[in-house]
Amino acid sequence: MKIPVLEVFGPTVQGEGMVAGQKTMFVRTGGCDYSCAWCDSAFTWDGSQKADALTPETIVAKLQEIGGDRFNHVTISGGNPALHKGIGELVQLLKAQDIGTAVETQGSFWQEWLREIDDVTISPKPPSSKMVTDWEKLDYFCEQLQSRPSGSQSLKVVIFNEGDLAYAKKVHARYPNMTFYLQVGNDDLEEGTPTRLRDHLLERYEWLVDTVMEDKELNNVRVLPQIHTLIWGNKQGV
Amino acid sequence: MKIPVLEVFGPTVQGEGMVAGQKTMFVRTGGCDYSCAWCDSAFTWDGSQKADALTPETIVAKLQEIGGDRFNHVTISGGNPALHKGIGELVQLLKAQDIGTAVETQGSFWQEWLREIDDVTISPKPPSSKMVTDWEKLDYFCEQLQSRPSGSQSLKVVIFNEGDLAYAKKVHARYPNMTFYLQVGNDDLEEGTPTRLRDHLLERYEWLVDTVMEDKELNNVRVLPQIHTLIWGNKQGV
Ligand code: SF4
Ligand code: SF4
Repeated sequence: MKIPVLEVFGPTVQGEGMVAGQKTMFVRTGGCDYSCAWCDSAFTWDGSQKADALTPETIVAKLQEIGGDRFNHVTISGGNPALHKGIGELVQLLKAQDIGTAVETQGSFWQEWLREIDDVTISPKPPSSKMVTDWEKLDYFCEQLQSRPSGSQSLKVVIFNEGDLAYAKKVHARYPNMTFYLQVGNDDLEEGTPTRLRDHLLERYEWLVDTVMEDKELNNVRVLPQIHTLIWGNKQGV
Repeated sequence: MKIPVLEVFGPTVQGEGMVAGQKTMFVRTGGCDYSCAWCDSAFTWDGSQKADALTPETIVAKLQEIGGDRFNHVTISGGNPALHKGIGELVQLLKAQDIGTAVETQGSFWQEWLREIDDVTISPKPPSSKMVTDWEKLDYFCEQLQSRPSGSQSLKVVIFNEGDLAYAKKVHARYPNMTFYLQVGNDDLEEGTPTRLRDHLLERYEWLVDTVMEDKELNNVRVLPQIHTLIWGNKQGV
């Protein structure tokens, strides 16, 4: 079954969440059921770039062509990769070669192949995204992941403002046993100078850290910047 | 049994390694069996600051006094915390209150209380430190940690130059099943301006990332900057 693919690139470092820093290849799929106000991969769903429909075998060949023998981890991102049933076959092919896998999705669609992914990041979207969370779907999603025999999962909420932080607290209180990440949102997707973006985002990160440190409802959390943005700014494909 | 303590502070974010971003309190113990050329906590062993000998109960009281109800995780760092047998009692007290624990040590001394620590980072020191690794001691240390019924452990090597990278590859090849972190070394402990240090360290980080991405012996690794240094520079106690 074919998968719409926007980019295959790497190896590079995973810039976010539970596998931050991991050397990984990226497969970015097209299409999203959301349209977040601040989406940093809007090109996956707004029609500005065209996806190629590729078979899982072709994707693996592309990974090998680009990454050679310099990787053993693949991150499948989007858009929302959980829209695509065909990824199941891709995951089997990667596992057969002992390649680790990670996926990030907002938790709005469940796929059985998610059971096979080593590290699943669920990133429910806070109010600043203008999206509305379907809590029952998210409950189901978290339950399915937590009942897996192996693999790890975590929640990650991107924070732009106080309203997002209130939402994050609600998420954390609802799923207290899930490892919980807060990430500072990139609110300047137009800034072309990486060093200027860096200073701004680290200021925002410091604000988020200070706020979380004062809040006793947010004790068991991990607060991270987007590492790749600190280095490469808003550049695509790194 | 009393423990020599240099600082108790927090809550703040863990800036390094396997629990990067975690909201945590810090207890920094005095004394080290090493004297790394680039040690960023030389004040724990070079006589420039005096440690207080504190009972585990006093340390817990201090943590509560400073952190209030705004924490449930404590990082014990140094110096080399594994020099102090008394930490066992401290760990028991913290566990009784359901407080998570993390420790970083170079792996030169074993303590039975290390079995009780949630996240142990072993940081063997590369050639640029001017220290020499005792591989048999490190073997024993890693074996003990990996045979624990619970808790996680990882290796972390700080990288300043190509020689350190060759050492890191040797460590990774010797313990292929241990989660492996590479961290860019802070080679400018005198720089007083955080933004200037930040730009320099991110340049060094980019170099490390580029080098690791090209190296097929370093596929299963995680490369991280020191997050706290990016924000607060060389300031102590944050
Ligand atoms: S869910 Fe993710 S990919 Fe989809 S619109 Fe939101 S930020 Fe963009
Ligand atoms: S082992 Fe750590 S604390 Fe001891 S001298 Fe080296 S860097 Fe400093």
